[in-house]
Amino acid sequence: MISRLVLPTCSKRFFVRQFCSHDHNPKATKAATTSTATLELATKQQLYMLDPASPGSVFFLPHGTRIFNKLLKFMKLQQEKQGFTEVISPLIYKKQLWETSGHWAKYSEDMFRVEGNDKSKSNELEKDDIYGLKPMNCPGHCVIFKRFNRSYKELPIRFSDWSSLHRNEASGALTGLTRVRRFHQDDGHIFCTHEQVGDEISKTIKLIKICYSVFGLDNFRMMLSTRPDNYIGTLEDWTRAESELSNVLDSELGAGEWSLREGDGAFYGPKIDILLTDHFGKEHQAATIQLDFQLPQRFKLEYQNAEDSYDTPIMIHRAIFGSVERFMALLIDHYAGKWPFWLSPRQAVVIPINDAHKDYAREVVKVLSNESQDFEHATKLSQSKFYVDLDDRNETIGFRTKEAIGKGYNFIILVGDKEIESGKLAIRPSYSRKIENLSVDDTRNKFKDLENNYH
Amino acid sequence: MISRLVLPTCSKRFFVRQFCSHDHNPKATKAATTSTATLELATKQQLYMLDPASPGSVFFLPHGTRIFNKLLKFMKLQQEKQGFTEVISPLIYKKQLWETSGHWAKYSEDMFRVEGNDKSKSNELEKDDIYGLKPMNCPGHCVIFKRFNRSYKELPIRFSDWSSLHRNEASGALTGLTRVRRFHQDDGHIFCTHEQVGDEISKTIKLIKICYSVFGLDNFRMMLSTRPDNYIGTLEDWTRAESELSNVLDSELGAGEWSLREGDGAFYGPKIDILLTDHFGKEHQAATIQLDFQLPQRFKLEYQNAEDSYDTPIMIHRAIFGSVERFMALLIDHYAGKWPFWLSPRQAVVIPINDAHKDYAREVVKVLSNESQDFEHATKLSQSKFYVDLDDRNETIGFRTKEAIGKGYNFIILVGDKEIESGKLAIRPSYSRKIENLSVDDTRNKFKDLENNYH
Repeated sequence: MISRLVLPTCSKRFFVRQFCSHDHNPKATKAATTSTATLELATKQQLYMLDPASPGSVFFLPHGTRIFNKLLKFMKLQQEKQGFTEVISPLIYKKQLWETSGHWAKYSEDMFRVEGNDKSKSNELEKDDIYGLKPMNCPGHCVIFKRFNRSYKELPIRFSDWSSLHRNEASGALTGLTRVRRFHQDDGHIFCTHEQVGDEISKTIKLIKICYSVFGLDNFRMMLSTRPDNYIGTLEDWTRAESELSNVLDSELGAGEWSLREGDGAFYGPKIDILLTDHFGKEHQAATIQLDFQLPQRFKLEYQNAEDSYDTPIMIHRAIFGSVERFMALLIDHYAGKWPFWLSPRQAVVIPINDAHKDYAREVVKVLSNESQDFEHATKLSQSKFYVDLDDRNETIGFRTKEAIGKGYNFIILVGDKEIESGKLAIRPSYSRKIENLSVDDTRNKFKDLENNYH
Repeated sequence: MISRLVLPTCSKRFFVRQFCSHDHNPKATKAATTSTATLELATKQQLYMLDPASPGSVFFLPHGTRIFNKLLKFMKLQQEKQGFTEVISPLIYKKQLWETSGHWAKYSEDMFRVEGNDKSKSNELEKDDIYGLKPMNCPGHCVIFKRFNRSYKELPIRFSDWSSLHRNEASGALTGLTRVRRFHQDDGHIFCTHEQVGDEISKTIKLIKICYSVFGLDNFRMMLSTRPDNYIGTLEDWTRAESELSNVLDSELGAGEWSLREGDGAFYGPKIDILLTDHFGKEHQAATIQLDFQLPQRFKLEYQNAEDSYDTPIMIHRAIFGSVERFMALLIDHYAGKWPFWLSPRQAVVIPINDAHKDYAREVVKVLSNESQDFEHATKLSQSKFYVDLDDRNETIGFRTKEAIGKGYNFIILVGDKEIESGKLAIRPSYSRKIENLSVDDTRNKFKDLENNYH
């Protein structure tokens, strides 16, 4: 599998990898995540579905959307550490923009073409109305950078973006969450000076380590790919950047703790690839850090330097999840469907022992899931909410408990006479039979604590 | 302006309004929100920009994105009251889906057409690869509903969706945030039984009242549009639905407190339009509630009823903001750029009196804005963050304060010897000269309180 990363076989693929900033090689994890087990889990937990109406575009069902949104919330918080600010940029751009960026000439086969559908228009008008559905965010971010006069004092400027991206992968190759046509990245672009490159890369690597450790993904390796024969830019810029990157890797990982792929960088800049090993021993490409000397030139980006003349910024493309869809596939595998509480779309189920306990159970669900039926006041921004369901079917406790475990609930909360009298719920985690007795408030605090510490 | 809503002049527009579920009439607020003042404010506050690279698609700049995201966060919390669950659905769907929904025949001129760009494909293959870029979410939600066996016990099923939507408005008519080609809705679709319609409409109206009141938008009127001549469905269904809607409007607003537009409903069902009056006395269409007897039939949706046979659900299209972009334009006007603290993209600025106070000021900013430089641990999910900047330029206090007020900061925080010694910051709101002295912790609590109560 890795060989496909290192030695792409066809020229188109080669170009995609070489040219397209921020390409995370959608093929890299194919073998790893198309296992029947992954698909079965996702189907059983109703996380997402696919449909011929839109091949390669995932429909995230309610429970999958919960995970997706929690991943976004998590990453947005971490991005703030490095000073990223989010922007929302358009999805369709006129052909001219892709000509400026170079994508129309070299990448258009992988892009969806968009045009007006109005037959009454003349051909001349229509000609002007050809768009590409964006496969990546970088050109849009260049448009934003370029709009304002920029000074060295503002740099680094760091834009994050969670836009939908589309790439026209061959239909025969589409699979689950890993080979898709529509996806999302935890995308970020840093515009900075040569002097700032080292610090930005260092912070990015630190963030990668922090983020992966939250998921227990501590096993990864990094590779630095350096100047190829067909490089653009000056030799001086390359030498300086490569030396910065080596130093950062040495200091963040330790000398000898990363590998070098000489001559394997993109023509527009050196890059660092991060390969994650999951607990089955499979490697996945997720994060990427790419320096780009080219795009800022193509877009004629500049900033005013301390000497009141103008310099071209360096652009760094970076992502930590990479494709959120693919990262989710990796997590489904990684957790084998047993989501940690904070990420879980089914955090607890409340089971009343018999009919007499149903009302109380319903109240418990309302409090924990913040399902206020208060239609007089707005729900406050700070209100915490957990995914807690009620199972008040007329089935035995054993049956309902077993089913709850099968569905992947993290906690099972029993409500009977004893619980109602004492005001303490009987809570058991689905992975053990050990019951804890807690008040509703203490339960909520326990849940808050688990979520807040990424357990 | 309102006459355009009631009496569309051209057949295409008429059709759009009549046919397209969830059309919020992008033209309704044109006159209201293209004022030079609105554009000037948005430009001055750097909220968004437009570019010929994508006419009609808004680039939300960092500060505009903050407002956009806060509006989403707010509305997602309120949607939960009614039991909505979010889904993420594809943006492009094959022509066949739009034929099923009826849009391809009747609405295709307003849709962007999407196709593969791969010249190597045969025409035959390409034919199969024609997509429409979605102008609305309803068909995608029907696909999700249809995928699973549905029982009456599950109903109502309520999907919310924040997808990007595209409509190919004429380029000459594009303006700011109000006449756009790409937009987002606080979109929701309810699939329910006939018996559930009244309760759902009632909850939706309650939510509309709650949501608008948070923004101080208390002046609105509702109109019920009833069965037109070209209706589909049974007379019995219409009569029942209309009577339900009248009853709900009577009980939510009071008899005589809403108006009737007889025969002005869409052919597929009756609807309620909500017109908001802002404090300039201008009316804006924002919310909409539309019953739909047609789409569930076209998609052959069904659920198992209590008698074990199958019924077709009713679909309710509803939105409270309507287009988020247009609602933002309305808010820019409404607040005249003076954002309430909770929505503000610039909540406070910290001004050190001279060089000796810069370090302390920087620390204050870090604490309030949660700009942790802790690269050892992940930022916790619960951490609160405010938009607080530092202005440590070597300018006079007067100059910096005046500029801060001009930029729209809600609070100005001064840090000098006295503040450092006492540990109490000098805080003044930008609309008054009254200074409050608060510790950093108390400042944070004050901010939390303001945000939490939508002040």
